[in-house]
Amino acid sequence: MTIGPEQASNPIITAFANSPDRGRGLARDMAVRWALEEAGQNYDVRLVPIERLKDPENIKVQPFGQIPSYRDGDLTLFESGAIVLHIAQQHHGLLPDDGDARARAIVWMFAALTTVQMPIVEREAAMLLEQGKPWYADRAPMLADRVRDRLRALSQRLGSNDWLEGQFTAGDLLMVNVLRRPAGLEIAQEFANLAAYVARGEDRPAFKRAYAAQHKVFEEAAGR
Amino acid sequence: MTIGPEQASNPIITAFANSPDRGRGLARDMAVRWALEEAGQNYDVRLVPIERLKDPENIKVQPFGQIPSYRDGDLTLFESGAIVLHIAQQHHGLLPDDGDARARAIVWMFAALTTVQMPIVEREAAMLLEQGKPWYADRAPMLADRVRDRLRALSQRLGSNDWLEGQFTAGDLLMVNVLRRPAGLEIAQEFANLAAYVARGEDRPAFKRAYAAQHKVFEEAAGR
Repeated sequence: MTIGPEQASNPIITAFANSPDRGRGLARDMAVRWALEEAGQNYDVRLVPIERLKDPENIKVQPFGQIPSYRDGDLTLFESGAIVLHIAQQHHGLLPDDGDARARAIVWMFAALTTVQMPIVEREAAMLLEQGKPWYADRAPMLADRVRDRLRALSQRLGSNDWLEGQFTAGDLLMVNVLRRPAGLEIAQEFANLAAYVARGEDRPAFKRAYAAQHKVFEEAAGR
Repeated sequence: MTIGPEQASNPIITAFANSPDRGRGLARDMAVRWALEEAGQNYDVRLVPIERLKDPENIKVQPFGQIPSYRDGDLTLFESGAIVLHIAQQHHGLLPDDGDARARAIVWMFAALTTVQMPIVEREAAMLLEQGKPWYADRAPMLADRVRDRLRALSQRLGSNDWLEGQFTAGDLLMVNVLRRPAGLEIAQEFANLAAYVARGEDRPAFKRAYAAQHKVFEEAAGR
């Protein structure tokens, strides 16, 4: 799966060689893999060990020392949102053709990665890094409420629709992917339509292929 | 400045009638105003009192009960990042014409609003809401370090360049706007090139016009 640039014809993305999520598809490459699968675009993967994220080779393509990056010929991108948008603009199926509908789908891409993701990641950071701190019990309900406020608003907007703007778009892809994070999913389950929305996303064949591909990396690293 | 939809020919954005920032240009309409000024696009503003953000009229255009929203004819958008991208795609001057350069500029839009903004907003929330809590002194340095890690990486990437990708783009617009938030700016000042980068952004005539326009709303609300 890891190949040198000289053989490349497919786009190449970076992903963790040893993801801390143990193959649960929570690393940031998951949205990019899913988008590539929806687009029917083959891709190759360069695996980066976590301890080498800050090496100059990775900083060159991802200045914040993270994954994923994306390379297609001379073009190198980072930020999963920007990569998904680029893929969606290059292929059919992830954004409507109509300009106004396309702009609306892009709204949900930003909403997923900023308005909805921010309190989820804040809660996640506290769950991971501050569980043992004396203040955790006081802060935890406040952090959960910040997530809940956003998800209640999202649930009301989604209503009984399958997707946020009629058809499935890159906005749904990123939103489902954000809601899958455990610090969000636990609260999304309180809203029946959001739970069904996440399940609907995960049921897409492209999602399943992306999930299987990243899970295989974990299994191979674990020597299974 | 507040006009009814029946007279509209310019795009209409929403903004706070009474912003808690007291006219310092920290509300989310600032990036949209700046982008419209860079694009040379006239616009109108519908002011929303903070206590009416959750009213059905605003929820209809901004499901999370925030500002800004953007309306142009039949198209209604929200999320400042999506609105700025839409404006940049409709006008010259905010994104390069070349496809690859354009994709790179969009990377920085997402980097600004997610990777860089997230720890700044987290620190800001603590400064606003948890200053009086017994744990604040323990958490504050950790939150500052999260911002500092991101800004150090950004500073290294910017180096001695004026802008992140050669020419000024919507990526710089959003990045400068995020760095202006006090919880970020205080730390950005530790990096001489980032301090100069913010000053360079604020020195643009379009920034100044946008700043003056939102400041006037504050002055009028304060009866000056």
